[in-house]
Amino acid sequence: MSEARPPIPVLAVVGVGLIGGSYAAALRRAGHVGRVLGVGRNAKSLTRAYELGLIDDSATAAEAAAQADLVMLAAPVGAMAQVLAEMRPHLKPGAVVTDAGSTKAEVVQAARAALGERIACFVPGHPIAGAERVGPDAADAELYAGRNVILTPLAENDPRDVARVRASWEACGARVHEMDVASHDRVLGSVSHMPHFLASVYVAQVARSEDAAERLALAGSGFRDFTRIAAGSTEMWRDIFLSNRDAMMAELAALRAVLDSAEQALDRRDGAALEALLEEAALCRRGWKLGGTK
Amino acid sequence: MSEARPPIPVLAVVGVGLIGGSYAAALRRAGHVGRVLGVGRNAKSLTRAYELGLIDDSATAAEAAAQADLVMLAAPVGAMAQVLAEMRPHLKPGAVVTDAGSTKAEVVQAARAALGERIACFVPGHPIAGAERVGPDAADAELYAGRNVILTPLAENDPRDVARVRASWEACGARVHEMDVASHDRVLGSVSHMPHFLASVYVAQVARSEDAAERLALAGSGFRDFTRIAAGSTEMWRDIFLSNRDAMMAELAALRAVLDSAEQALDRRDGAALEALLEEAALCRRGWKLGGTK
Repeated sequence: MSEARPPIPVLAVVGVGLIGGSYAAALRRAGHVGRVLGVGRNAKSLTRAYELGLIDDSATAAEAAAQADLVMLAAPVGAMAQVLAEMRPHLKPGAVVTDAGSTKAEVVQAARAALGERIACFVPGHPIAGAERVGPDAADAELYAGRNVILTPLAENDPRDVARVRASWEACGARVHEMDVASHDRVLGSVSHMPHFLASVYVAQVARSEDAAERLALAGSGFRDFTRIAAGSTEMWRDIFLSNRDAMMAELAALRAVLDSAEQALDRRDGAALEALLEEAALCRRGWKLGGTK
Repeated sequence: MSEARPPIPVLAVVGVGLIGGSYAAALRRAGHVGRVLGVGRNAKSLTRAYELGLIDDSATAAEAAAQADLVMLAAPVGAMAQVLAEMRPHLKPGAVVTDAGSTKAEVVQAARAALGERIACFVPGHPIAGAERVGPDAADAELYAGRNVILTPLAENDPRDVARVRASWEACGARVHEMDVASHDRVLGSVSHMPHFLASVYVAQVARSEDAAERLALAGSGFRDFTRIAAGSTEMWRDIFLSNRDAMMAELAALRAVLDSAEQALDRRDGAALEALLEEAALCRRGWKLGGTK
Protein backbone atom coordinates (compact mmCIF):
# COMPACT_ATOMS: atom_id res chain seq x y z
CA MET A 1 0.00 0.00 0.00
CA SER A 2 2.98 2.31 -0.31
CA GLU A 3 2.18 3.32 -3.89
CA ALA A 4 0.05 6.42 -4.45
CA ARG A 5 -3.29 5.72 -6.04
CA PRO A 6 -3.24 7.21 -9.56
CA PRO A 7 -5.76 9.99 -10.37
CA ILE A 8 -7.66 7.60 -12.67
CA PRO A 9 -7.52 4.10 -11.11
CA VAL A 10 -9.45 2.54 -14.03
CA LEU A 11 -9.71 4.19 -17.45
CA ALA A 12 -12.02 2.87 -20.17
CA VAL A 13 -11.29 3.90 -23.75
CA VAL A 14 -14.02 3.36 -26.33
CA GLY A 15 -12.22 3.26 -29.67
CA VAL A 16 -8.54 2.38 -29.34
CA GLY A 17 -7.28 4.08 -32.50
CA LEU A 18 -5.14 7.17 -32.93
CA ILE A 19 -7.17 9.43 -30.62
CA GLY A 20 -8.12 6.98 -27.86
CA GLY A 21 -4.89 5.00 -28.01
CA SER A 22 -2.75 8.13 -27.78
CA TYR A 23 -4.77 9.36 -24.78
CA ALA A 24 -4.23 6.01 -23.02
CA ALA A 25 -0.52 5.93 -23.88
CA ALA A 26 0.08 9.49 -22.67
CA LEU A 27 -1.80 8.95 -19.39
CA ARG A 28 0.00 5.70 -18.73
CA ARG A 29 3.38 7.29 -19.34
CA ALA A 30 2.47 10.12 -16.96
CA GLY A 31 1.50 7.61 -14.25
CA HIS A 32 -1.98 9.14 -14.37
CA VAL A 33 -3.88 5.83 -14.82
CA GLY A 34 -3.92 2.44 -13.15
CA ARG A 35 -5.73 -0.06 -15.36
CA VAL A 36 -6.85 0.64 -18.93
CA LEU A 37 -9.81 -1.16 -20.49
CA GLY A 38 -10.41 -1.07 -24.24
CA VAL A 39 -13.91 -1.15 -25.72
CA GLY A 40 -14.70 -1.50 -29.39
CA ARG A 41 -16.39 -3.45 -32.14
CA ASN A 42 -13.19 -4.28 -33.94
CA ALA A 43 -11.56 -7.31 -32.26
CA LYS A 44 -8.38 -6.90 -34.32
CA SER A 45 -7.89 -3.35 -33.11
CA LEU A 46 -8.40 -4.41 -29.50
CA THR A 47 -5.88 -7.25 -29.87
CA ARG A 48 -3.39 -4.91 -31.46
CA ALA A 49 -3.94 -2.29 -28.74
CA TYR A 50 -3.25 -4.98 -26.14
CA GLU A 51 -0.09 -6.12 -27.94
CA LEU A 52 1.10 -2.50 -28.05
CA GLY A 53 0.48 -2.10 -24.31
CA LEU A 54 -2.13 0.61 -24.85
CA ILE A 55 -4.75 -1.36 -22.88
CA ASP A 56 -4.58 -3.99 -20.15
CA ASP A 57 -7.73 -5.80 -21.22
CA SER A 58 -10.75 -5.54 -23.48
CA ALA A 59 -14.28 -5.29 -22.14
CA THR A 60 -17.86 -4.79 -23.25
CA ALA A 61 -19.38 -1.35 -22.80
CA ALA A 62 -21.34 -2.64 -19.76
CA GLU A 63 -18.28 -4.24 -18.14
CA ALA A 64 -16.18 -1.15 -18.73
CA ALA A 65 -18.88 1.13 -17.27
CA ALA A 66 -19.04 -1.00 -14.13
CA GLN A 67 -15.31 -0.59 -13.48
CA ALA A 68 -14.17 2.71 -14.94
CA ASP A 69 -13.54 5.90 -13.03
CA LEU A 70 -13.22 7.78 -16.30
CA VAL A 71 -14.59 6.80 -19.71
CA MET A 72 -13.10 8.32 -22.89
CA LEU A 73 -15.40 8.04 -25.91
CA ALA A 74 -13.08 8.12 -28.92
CA ALA A 75 -15.57 6.47 -31.27
CA PRO A 76 -17.23 8.14 -34.28
CA VAL A 77 -19.92 10.63 -33.25
CA GLY A 78 -22.57 8.44 -34.86
CA ALA A 79 -21.68 5.48 -32.59
CA MET A 80 -21.64 7.36 -29.29
CA ALA A 81 -25.36 7.27 -28.53
CA GLN A 82 -25.52 3.49 -28.53
CA VAL A 83 -22.39 3.05 -26.41
CA LEU A 84 -23.70 5.53 -23.86
CA ALA A 85 -27.08 3.78 -23.74
CA GLU A 86 -25.32 0.45 -23.09
CA MET A 87 -23.16 1.99 -20.38
CA ARG A 88 -25.81 4.02 -18.56
CA PRO A 89 -27.31 1.32 -16.25
CA HIS A 90 -23.83 0.17 -15.21
CA LEU A 91 -21.91 3.42 -14.63
CA LYS A 92 -20.18 3.56 -11.24
CA PRO A 93 -21.27 6.35 -8.91
CA GLY A 94 -18.84 9.23 -9.39
CA ALA A 95 -17.65 8.02 -12.78
CA VAL A 96 -16.93 10.71 -15.38
CA VAL A 97 -17.53 10.28 -19.09
CA THR A 98 -15.85 12.48 -21.69
CA ASP A 99 -15.43 12.36 -25.45
CA ALA A 100 -13.14 13.46 -28.27
CA GLY A 101 -15.70 14.33 -30.95
CA SER A 102 -14.96 17.08 -33.49
CA THR A 103 -18.32 18.79 -32.99
CA LYS A 104 -20.13 19.28 -29.72
CA ALA A 105 -23.80 20.30 -30.09
CA GLU A 106 -24.84 17.02 -31.68
CA VAL A 107 -22.76 14.92 -29.26
CA VAL A 108 -24.31 16.69 -26.27
CA GLN A 109 -27.78 16.15 -27.70
CA ALA A 110 -27.05 12.42 -28.16
CA ALA A 111 -25.56 12.19 -24.67
CA ARG A 112 -28.60 13.86 -23.10
CA ALA A 113 -30.90 11.41 -24.89
CA ALA A 114 -28.79 8.39 -23.92
CA LEU A 115 -27.87 9.33 -20.34
CA GLY A 116 -31.08 11.05 -19.22
CA GLU A 117 -30.81 12.26 -15.63
CA ARG A 118 -27.21 11.00 -15.50
CA ILE A 119 -26.11 13.66 -18.00
CA ALA A 120 -24.20 15.47 -15.23
CA CYS A 121 -21.39 12.88 -15.50
CA PHE A 122 -20.70 13.80 -19.17
CA VAL A 123 -17.99 16.42 -19.74
CA PRO A 124 -17.72 17.05 -23.51
CA GLY A 125 -14.24 17.52 -24.96
CA HIS A 126 -12.35 17.91 -28.23
CA PRO A 127 -8.59 17.47 -28.70
CA ILE A 128 -7.42 19.44 -31.75
CA ALA A 129 -4.87 16.98 -33.00
CA GLY A 130 -5.53 15.66 -36.44
CA ALA A 131 -3.23 13.24 -38.15
CA GLU A 132 -3.47 11.35 -41.39
CA ARG A 133 -2.81 7.95 -39.76
CA VAL A 134 -5.47 5.81 -38.09
CA GLY A 135 -5.67 2.73 -35.84
CA PRO A 136 -3.82 1.57 -32.70
CA ASP A 137 -0.45 1.50 -34.47
CA ALA A 138 -0.74 5.25 -35.00
CA ALA A 139 -1.18 5.86 -31.25
CA ASP A 140 1.52 8.09 -29.83
CA ALA A 141 2.03 9.24 -26.25
CA GLU A 142 3.33 12.54 -27.70
CA LEU A 143 0.31 13.30 -29.90
CA TYR A 144 -1.22 15.83 -27.52
CA ALA A 145 1.97 17.50 -26.30
CA GLY A 146 1.54 21.25 -26.79
CA ARG A 147 -1.77 20.79 -28.63
CA ASN A 148 -5.05 22.50 -27.77
CA VAL A 149 -7.91 20.61 -26.14
CA ILE A 150 -11.30 22.26 -25.75
CA LEU A 151 -13.75 21.32 -23.03
CA THR A 152 -17.36 22.49 -23.28
CA PRO A 153 -18.75 21.85 -19.78
CA LEU A 154 -22.49 21.52 -19.30
CA ALA A 155 -24.53 23.48 -16.75
CA GLU A 156 -25.17 20.17 -14.98
CA ASN A 157 -21.47 19.27 -14.59
CA ASP A 158 -19.84 19.18 -11.17
CA PRO A 159 -16.79 21.48 -11.43
CA ARG A 160 -14.71 18.69 -9.82
CA ASP A 161 -15.54 16.38 -12.74
CA VAL A 162 -14.53 19.06 -15.23
CA ALA A 163 -11.31 19.45 -13.27
CA ARG A 164 -10.63 15.71 -13.49
CA VAL A 165 -11.02 15.71 -17.25
CA ARG A 166 -8.87 18.84 -17.53
CA ALA A 167 -6.16 17.25 -15.35
CA SER A 168 -6.10 14.17 -17.59
CA TRP A 169 -5.48 16.28 -20.70
CA GLU A 170 -2.86 18.34 -18.92
CA ALA A 171 -1.14 15.08 -17.96
CA CYS A 172 -1.03 14.38 -21.73
CA GLY A 173 0.82 17.68 -22.19
CA ALA A 174 -2.12 19.50 -23.79
CA ARG A 175 -3.31 23.07 -23.26
CA VAL A 176 -6.90 23.01 -22.10
CA HIS A 177 -9.43 25.69 -23.06
CA GLU A 178 -13.02 25.92 -21.90
CA MET A 179 -15.84 27.39 -23.94
CA ASP A 180 -19.54 26.86 -24.42
CA VAL A 181 -20.85 24.34 -26.93
CA ALA A 182 -22.08 26.91 -29.46
CA SER A 183 -18.77 28.82 -29.40
CA HIS A 184 -16.83 25.60 -29.95
CA ASP A 185 -18.88 24.63 -32.95
CA ARG A 186 -18.73 28.13 -34.42
CA VAL A 187 -14.94 28.45 -33.93
CA LEU A 188 -14.12 24.97 -35.22
CA GLY A 189 -16.63 25.36 -38.02
CA SER A 190 -14.68 28.44 -39.09
CA VAL A 191 -11.04 27.42 -38.75
CA SER A 192 -11.24 23.66 -39.28
CA HIS A 193 -14.40 22.60 -41.13
CA MET A 194 -14.65 25.52 -43.57
CA PRO A 195 -11.14 25.05 -45.03
CA HIS A 196 -11.95 21.38 -45.69
CA PHE A 197 -15.28 22.29 -47.25
CA LEU A 198 -13.83 25.02 -49.48
CA ALA A 199 -10.78 23.00 -50.51
CA SER A 200 -13.04 20.11 -51.55
CA VAL A 201 -15.41 22.39 -53.47
CA TYR A 202 -12.46 23.97 -55.25
CA VAL A 203 -10.79 20.65 -56.18
CA ALA A 204 -14.11 19.25 -57.42
CA GLN A 205 -14.52 22.32 -59.65
CA VAL A 206 -11.02 21.82 -61.11
CA ALA A 207 -11.65 18.08 -61.55
CA ARG A 208 -14.88 18.76 -63.47
CA SER A 209 -13.31 21.19 -65.93
CA GLU A 210 -12.87 19.97 -69.49
CA ASP A 211 -9.12 20.62 -69.38
CA ALA A 212 -8.64 19.18 -65.88
CA ALA A 213 -5.60 17.11 -66.88
CA GLU A 214 -3.81 20.16 -68.28
CA ARG A 215 -4.66 22.20 -65.21
CA LEU A 216 -3.44 19.55 -62.78
CA ALA A 217 -0.23 19.03 -64.74
CA LEU A 218 0.64 22.71 -64.33
CA ALA A 219 -0.50 23.17 -60.73
CA GLY A 220 2.28 24.27 -58.39
CA SER A 221 3.11 24.56 -54.71
CA GLY A 222 0.28 27.03 -53.98
CA PHE A 223 -2.23 24.48 -55.25
CA ARG A 224 -0.47 21.72 -53.30
CA ASP A 225 -0.81 23.40 -49.92
CA PHE A 226 -4.25 24.94 -50.52
CA THR A 227 -5.75 21.55 -51.41
CA ARG A 228 -3.84 19.15 -49.11
CA ILE A 229 -6.80 18.71 -46.76
CA ALA A 230 -9.15 17.79 -49.64
CA ALA A 231 -7.43 14.38 -49.73
CA GLY A 232 -8.70 13.48 -46.23
CA SER A 233 -11.22 10.86 -45.11
CA THR A 234 -14.47 11.52 -46.95
CA GLU A 235 -16.68 9.65 -44.46
CA MET A 236 -15.23 11.44 -41.47
CA TRP A 237 -15.62 14.86 -43.04
CA ARG A 238 -19.12 14.14 -44.31
CA ASP A 239 -20.11 13.33 -40.72
CA ILE A 240 -18.39 16.40 -39.33
CA PHE A 241 -20.10 18.69 -41.85
CA LEU A 242 -23.51 17.13 -41.16
CA SER A 243 -23.10 17.25 -37.39
CA ASN A 244 -22.01 20.90 -37.54
CA ARG A 245 -24.45 21.95 -40.24
CA ASP A 246 -25.92 25.00 -38.52
CA ALA A 247 -22.58 26.61 -37.69
CA MET A 248 -21.27 25.78 -41.18
CA MET A 249 -24.28 27.39 -42.88
CA ALA A 250 -23.71 30.57 -40.89
CA GLU A 251 -20.01 30.60 -41.84
CA LEU A 252 -20.83 30.01 -45.50
CA ALA A 253 -23.19 32.98 -45.47
CA ALA A 254 -20.46 35.18 -43.99
CA LEU A 255 -17.93 33.87 -46.50
CA ARG A 256 -20.27 34.59 -49.41
CA ALA A 257 -20.57 38.20 -48.33
CA VAL A 258 -16.78 38.65 -48.56
CA LEU A 259 -16.58 36.61 -51.77
CA ASP A 260 -19.31 38.75 -53.33
CA SER A 261 -17.51 42.00 -52.54
CA ALA A 262 -14.15 40.64 -53.78
CA GLU A 263 -15.72 39.41 -57.00
CA GLN A 264 -17.45 42.74 -57.54
CA ALA A 265 -14.15 44.57 -57.00
CA LEU A 266 -12.50 42.33 -59.60
CA ASP A 267 -15.41 42.75 -62.00
CA ARG A 268 -15.19 46.55 -61.91
CA ARG A 269 -11.34 46.42 -61.94
CA ASP A 270 -11.18 48.14 -58.56
CA GLY A 271 -7.51 47.66 -57.69
CA ALA A 272 -7.74 49.64 -54.45
CA ALA A 273 -10.59 47.51 -53.10
CA LEU A 274 -8.82 44.29 -54.13
CA GLU A 275 -5.58 45.38 -52.53
CA ALA A 276 -7.37 46.36 -49.30
CA LEU A 277 -8.87 42.88 -49.07
CA LEU A 278 -5.57 41.17 -49.86
CA GLU A 279 -3.79 43.36 -47.32
CA GLU A 280 -6.33 42.57 -44.62
CA ALA A 281 -5.87 38.85 -45.22
CA ALA A 282 -2.09 39.04 -45.53
CA LEU A 283 -1.69 41.00 -42.28
CA CYS A 284 -3.89 38.53 -40.43
CA ARG A 285 -2.09 35.50 -41.84
CA ARG A 286 1.43 36.89 -41.40
CA GLY A 287 0.65 37.56 -37.73
CA TRP A 288 -0.70 34.07 -37.13
CA LYS A 289 1.23 31.19 -35.61
CA LEU A 290 0.24 27.55 -35.20
CA GLY A 291 -0.56 26.88 -31.55
CA GLY A 292 -0.77 30.60 -30.77
CA THR A 293 -1.57 31.61 -27.22
CA LYS A 294 -5.14 31.84 -26.04
CA MET B 1 38.49 31.38 -82.42
CA SER B 2 38.53 27.85 -81.08
CA GLU B 3 35.66 28.42 -78.62
CA ALA B 4 32.15 27.65 -79.83
CA ARG B 5 29.88 30.68 -80.00
CA PRO B 6 27.18 30.32 -77.28
CA PRO B 7 23.55 30.06 -78.43
CA ILE B 8 22.85 33.51 -76.95
CA PRO B 9 25.94 35.70 -77.50
CA VAL B 10 24.39 38.69 -75.70
CA LEU B 11 21.48 38.33 -73.27
CA ALA B 12 19.65 41.34 -71.85
CA VAL B 13 17.65 40.85 -68.66
CA VAL B 14 15.14 43.53 -67.70
CA GLY B 15 14.63 43.14 -63.97
CA VAL B 16 17.50 41.35 -62.25
CA GLY B 17 15.57 39.95 -59.27
CA LEU B 18 14.64 36.36 -58.47
CA ILE B 19 13.13 35.52 -61.88
CA GLY B 20 15.48 37.38 -64.20
CA GLY B 21 18.57 36.80 -62.09
CA SER B 22 17.93 33.07 -61.85
CA TYR B 23 17.44 32.85 -65.63
CA ALA B 24 20.77 34.61 -66.19
CA ALA B 25 22.55 32.46 -63.59
CA ALA B 26 21.22 29.20 -65.02
CA LEU B 27 22.09 30.14 -68.62
CA ARG B 28 25.56 31.26 -67.66
CA ARG B 29 26.23 28.04 -65.76
CA ALA B 30 25.03 26.03 -68.78
CA GLY B 31 27.41 27.95 -71.08
CA HIS B 32 24.35 29.08 -73.00
CA VAL B 33 25.14 32.82 -72.89
CA GLY B 34 28.11 35.02 -73.67
CA ARG B 35 27.59 38.47 -72.21
CA VAL B 36 24.72 39.41 -69.88
CA LEU B 37 23.39 42.97 -69.68
CA GLY B 38 21.14 44.05 -66.81
CA VAL B 39 18.42 46.66 -67.29
CA GLY B 40 16.37 48.18 -64.51
CA ARG B 41 15.32 51.29 -62.64
CA ASN B 42 16.79 50.19 -59.33
CA ALA B 43 20.53 51.05 -59.35
CA LYS B 44 21.10 49.13 -56.12
CA SER B 45 19.70 45.93 -57.60
CA LEU B 46 21.87 46.32 -60.70
CA THR B 47 24.99 46.86 -58.60
CA ARG B 48 24.16 43.86 -56.46
CA ALA B 49 23.48 41.72 -59.55
CA TYR B 50 26.89 42.73 -60.89
CA GLU B 51 28.60 41.89 -57.57
CA LEU B 52 26.90 38.50 -57.58
CA GLY B 53 28.12 37.83 -61.14
CA LEU B 54 24.59 37.61 -62.51
CA ILE B 55 25.28 40.34 -65.09
CA ASP B 56 28.43 41.62 -66.80
CA ASP B 57 27.23 45.20 -67.11
CA SER B 58 24.20 47.41 -66.74
CA ALA B 59 22.63 49.23 -69.67
CA THR B 60 19.69 51.39 -70.61
CA ALA B 61 16.80 49.75 -72.42
CA ALA B 62 17.96 51.33 -75.69
CA GLU B 63 21.58 50.22 -75.24
CA ALA B 64 20.52 46.69 -74.32
CA ALA B 65 18.19 46.47 -77.33
CA ALA B 66 21.01 47.50 -79.64
CA GLN B 67 23.27 44.68 -78.45
CA ALA B 68 21.07 41.79 -77.30
CA ASP B 69 20.31 38.62 -79.24
CA LEU B 70 17.68 37.72 -76.67
CA VAL B 71 15.83 40.01 -74.27
CA MET B 72 14.16 38.59 -71.15
CA LEU B 73 11.52 40.88 -69.67
CA ALA B 74 11.34 39.94 -66.00
CA ALA B 75 9.82 43.24 -64.90
CA PRO B 76 6.29 43.71 -63.51
CA VAL B 77 3.61 43.40 -66.19
CA GLY B 78 2.69 47.05 -65.71
CA ALA B 79 6.22 48.18 -66.61
CA MET B 80 6.67 46.09 -69.75
CA ALA B 81 4.92 48.39 -72.23
CA GLN B 82 7.25 51.29 -71.55
CA VAL B 83 10.42 49.17 -71.72
CA LEU B 84 9.31 47.66 -75.02
CA ALA B 85 8.53 51.09 -76.43
CA GLU B 86 12.02 52.29 -75.47
CA MET B 87 13.64 49.21 -77.00
CA ARG B 88 11.67 49.06 -80.23
CA PRO B 89 13.65 51.54 -82.38
CA HIS B 90 16.94 49.93 -81.34
CA LEU B 91 16.26 46.18 -81.51
CA LYS B 92 18.83 44.27 -83.58
CA PRO B 93 17.55 42.43 -86.65
CA GLY B 94 16.90 38.86 -85.60
CA ALA B 95 16.67 39.66 -81.90
CA VAL B 96 14.09 37.75 -79.88
CA VAL B 97 12.17 39.22 -76.94
CA THR B 98 10.46 37.04 -74.36
CA ASP B 99 8.94 37.63 -70.93
CA ALA B 100 8.18 35.91 -67.63
CA GLY B 101 4.81 37.48 -66.77
CA SER B 102 2.23 35.48 -64.80
CA THR B 103 -0.59 36.28 -67.22
CA LYS B 104 -0.35 36.43 -70.99
CA ALA B 105 -3.35 38.11 -72.69
CA GLU B 106 -2.61 41.52 -71.20
CA VAL B 107 1.13 41.23 -71.81
CA VAL B 108 0.55 40.31 -75.44
CA GLN B 109 -1.83 43.24 -75.85
CA ALA B 110 0.77 45.60 -74.37
CA ALA B 111 3.51 44.11 -76.55
CA ARG B 112 1.43 44.52 -79.71
CA ALA B 113 0.79 48.15 -78.84
CA ALA B 114 4.45 48.84 -78.03
CA LEU B 115 6.14 46.82 -80.80
CA GLY B 116 3.70 47.39 -83.66
CA GLU B 117 4.86 45.60 -86.82
CA ARG B 118 7.83 44.19 -84.89
CA ILE B 119 5.52 42.01 -82.75
CA ALA B 120 6.84 38.88 -84.52
CA CYS B 121 10.01 39.04 -82.41
CA PHE B 122 8.02 38.69 -79.16
CA VAL B 123 7.62 35.12 -77.82
CA PRO B 124 5.52 35.25 -74.61
CA GLY B 125 6.54 32.94 -71.75
CA HIS B 126 5.80 32.13 -68.12
CA PRO B 127 8.05 30.12 -65.78
CA ILE B 128 5.96 28.54 -63.00
CA ALA B 129 8.42 28.98 -60.21
CA GLY B 130 7.18 31.07 -57.36
CA ALA B 131 9.25 31.72 -54.30
CA GLU B 132 8.75 33.94 -51.30
CA ARG B 133 12.12 35.66 -51.70
CA VAL B 134 12.79 38.61 -53.99
CA GLY B 135 15.77 40.57 -55.35
CA PRO B 136 19.12 39.61 -56.89
CA ASP B 137 20.28 37.84 -53.73
CA ALA B 138 17.43 35.37 -54.15
CA ALA B 139 18.60 34.44 -57.67
CA ASP B 140 19.45 30.76 -57.97
CA ALA B 141 20.76 28.84 -60.99
CA GLU B 142 18.69 25.88 -59.76
CA LEU B 143 15.36 27.72 -59.54
CA TYR B 144 14.00 26.34 -62.81
CA ALA B 145 15.37 22.80 -62.58
CA GLY B 146 12.47 20.42 -63.13
CA ARG B 147 9.93 23.25 -63.15
CA ASN B 148 7.33 23.94 -65.81
CA VAL B 149 7.67 26.84 -68.24
CA ILE B 150 4.81 27.73 -70.56
CA LEU B 151 5.33 29.46 -73.90
CA THR B 152 2.33 30.96 -75.70
CA PRO B 153 3.66 31.61 -79.22
CA LEU B 154 1.92 34.16 -81.42
CA ALA B 155 0.72 33.49 -84.97
CA GLU B 156 3.34 35.99 -86.15
CA ASN B 157 6.28 34.20 -84.47
CA ASP B 158 8.99 32.53 -86.54
CA PRO B 159 9.17 28.92 -85.24
CA ARG B 160 12.97 29.31 -85.05
CA ASP B 161 12.53 32.14 -82.54
CA VAL B 162 10.16 30.03 -80.46
CA ALA B 163 12.76 27.25 -80.58
CA ARG B 164 15.47 29.62 -79.33
CA VAL B 165 13.39 30.65 -76.33
CA ARG B 166 12.50 27.01 -75.67
CA ALA B 167 16.16 26.00 -75.84
CA SER B 168 17.09 28.68 -73.31
CA TRP B 169 14.57 27.35 -70.78
CA GLU B 170 15.65 23.78 -71.39
CA ALA B 171 19.22 24.89 -70.71
CA CYS B 172 17.89 26.10 -67.32
CA GLY B 173 16.61 22.57 -66.67
CA ALA B 174 12.94 23.45 -67.14
CA ARG B 175 10.20 21.48 -68.88
CA VAL B 176 8.69 23.60 -71.63
CA HIS B 177 5.01 23.45 -72.59
CA GLU B 178 3.33 25.35 -75.40
CA MET B 179 -0.26 26.51 -75.36
CA ASP B 180 -2.32 29.38 -76.66
CA VAL B 181 -2.68 32.58 -74.68
CA ALA B 182 -6.30 31.99 -73.65
CA SER B 183 -5.58 28.45 -72.44
CA HIS B 184 -2.64 29.68 -70.41
CA ASP B 185 -4.67 32.34 -68.67
CA ARG B 186 -7.56 29.94 -68.04
CA VAL B 187 -5.31 27.17 -66.65
CA LEU B 188 -3.22 29.47 -64.47
CA GLY B 189 -6.33 31.37 -63.42
CA SER B 190 -7.68 28.05 -62.17
CA VAL B 191 -4.73 26.39 -60.44
CA SER B 192 -2.69 29.41 -59.36
CA HIS B 193 -4.76 32.58 -59.13
CA MET B 194 -7.99 31.08 -57.77
CA PRO B 195 -6.36 29.47 -54.71
CA HIS B 196 -4.79 32.82 -53.83
CA PHE B 197 -8.10 34.63 -54.31
CA LEU B 198 -10.09 32.12 -52.25
CA ALA B 199 -7.51 31.85 -49.48
CA SER B 200 -7.49 35.64 -49.14
CA VAL B 201 -11.29 35.88 -49.13
CA TYR B 202 -11.45 33.16 -46.48
CA VAL B 203 -8.81 34.72 -44.20
CA ALA B 204 -10.46 38.14 -44.51
CA GLN B 205 -13.76 36.58 -43.45
CA VAL B 206 -12.12 34.99 -40.39
CA ALA B 207 -10.30 38.24 -39.57
CA ARG B 208 -13.57 40.20 -39.67
CA SER B 209 -15.43 37.89 -37.29
CA GLU B 210 -16.13 39.21 -33.80
CA ASP B 211 -14.31 36.30 -32.16
CA ALA B 212 -11.37 36.35 -34.61
CA ALA B 213 -8.76 36.13 -31.84
CA GLU B 214 -10.36 33.00 -30.39
CA ARG B 215 -10.65 31.43 -33.84
CA LEU B 216 -7.04 32.12 -34.75
CA ALA B 217 -5.80 30.81 -31.39
CA LEU B 218 -7.45 27.45 -32.08
CA ALA B 219 -6.64 27.13 -35.79
CA GLY B 220 -4.55 24.08 -36.63
CA SER B 221 -2.44 22.61 -39.39
CA GLY B 222 -5.32 22.45 -41.90
CA PHE B 223 -5.79 26.22 -41.56
CA ARG B 224 -2.03 26.73 -41.76
CA ASP B 225 -1.65 25.03 -45.15
CA PHE B 226 -4.94 26.23 -46.64
CA THR B 227 -4.08 29.86 -45.94
CA ARG B 228 -0.30 29.96 -46.47
CA ILE B 229 -0.59 31.71 -49.83
CA ALA B 230 -2.79 34.47 -48.36
CA ALA B 231 0.37 35.91 -46.74
CA GLY B 232 1.93 36.68 -50.16
CA SER B 233 2.69 40.02 -51.83
CA THR B 234 -0.55 41.98 -52.01
CA GLU B 235 0.59 44.27 -54.84
CA MET B 236 1.76 41.41 -57.02
CA TRP B 237 -1.45 39.45 -56.57
CA ARG B 238 -3.65 42.52 -57.07
CA ASP B 239 -1.94 43.02 -60.43
CA ILE B 240 -2.22 39.35 -61.38
CA PHE B 241 -5.94 39.28 -60.55
CA LEU B 242 -6.58 42.50 -62.51
CA SER B 243 -4.57 41.38 -65.52
CA ASN B 244 -6.36 38.01 -65.58
CA ARG B 245 -9.78 39.38 -64.71
CA ASP B 246 -11.78 37.72 -67.48
CA ALA B 247 -10.45 34.20 -66.87
CA MET B 248 -10.85 34.67 -63.10
CA MET B 249 -14.48 35.77 -63.46
CA ALA B 250 -15.21 32.64 -65.51
CA GLU B 251 -13.56 30.42 -62.87
CA LEU B 252 -15.44 32.13 -60.06
CA ALA B 253 -18.72 31.45 -61.84
CA ALA B 254 -17.81 27.77 -62.20
CA LEU B 255 -16.73 27.60 -58.56
CA ARG B 256 -19.97 29.18 -57.39
CA ALA B 257 -21.96 26.47 -59.17
CA VAL B 258 -20.14 23.76 -57.20
CA LEU B 259 -20.29 25.78 -53.97
CA ASP B 260 -24.03 26.26 -54.42
CA SER B 261 -24.67 22.55 -54.86
CA ALA B 262 -22.44 21.62 -51.90
CA GLU B 263 -24.15 24.18 -49.69
CA GLN B 264 -27.58 22.96 -50.75
CA ALA B 265 -26.56 19.36 -49.94
CA LEU B 266 -25.43 20.48 -46.50
CA ASP B 267 -28.60 22.51 -45.97
CA ARG B 268 -30.86 19.54 -46.71
CA ARG B 269 -28.55 17.17 -44.75
CA ASP B 270 -27.89 15.11 -47.88
CA GLY B 271 -24.99 12.94 -46.71
CA ALA B 272 -24.79 10.99 -49.97
CA ALA B 273 -24.42 14.12 -52.09
CA LEU B 274 -21.84 15.57 -49.71
CA GLU B 275 -19.85 12.36 -49.68
CA ALA B 276 -19.94 12.14 -53.50
CA LEU B 277 -18.47 15.63 -53.73
CA LEU B 278 -15.82 14.94 -51.09
CA GLU B 279 -14.94 11.66 -52.79
CA GLU B 280 -14.58 13.34 -56.18
CA ALA B 281 -12.23 15.91 -54.69
CA ALA B 282 -10.28 13.39 -52.60
CA LEU B 283 -9.70 11.04 -55.54
CA CYS B 284 -8.49 13.92 -57.71
CA ARG B 285 -6.19 15.28 -55.02
CA ARG B 286 -4.79 11.89 -53.94
CA GLY B 287 -3.88 11.16 -57.55
CA TRP B 288 -2.13 14.49 -58.04
CA LYS B 289 1.60 15.08 -57.78
CA LEU B 290 3.58 18.33 -57.88
CA GLY B 291 5.32 18.60 -61.24
CA GLY B 292 3.19 15.82 -62.74
CA THR B 293 3.76 14.90 -66.35
CA LYS B 294 1.99 16.83 -69.08
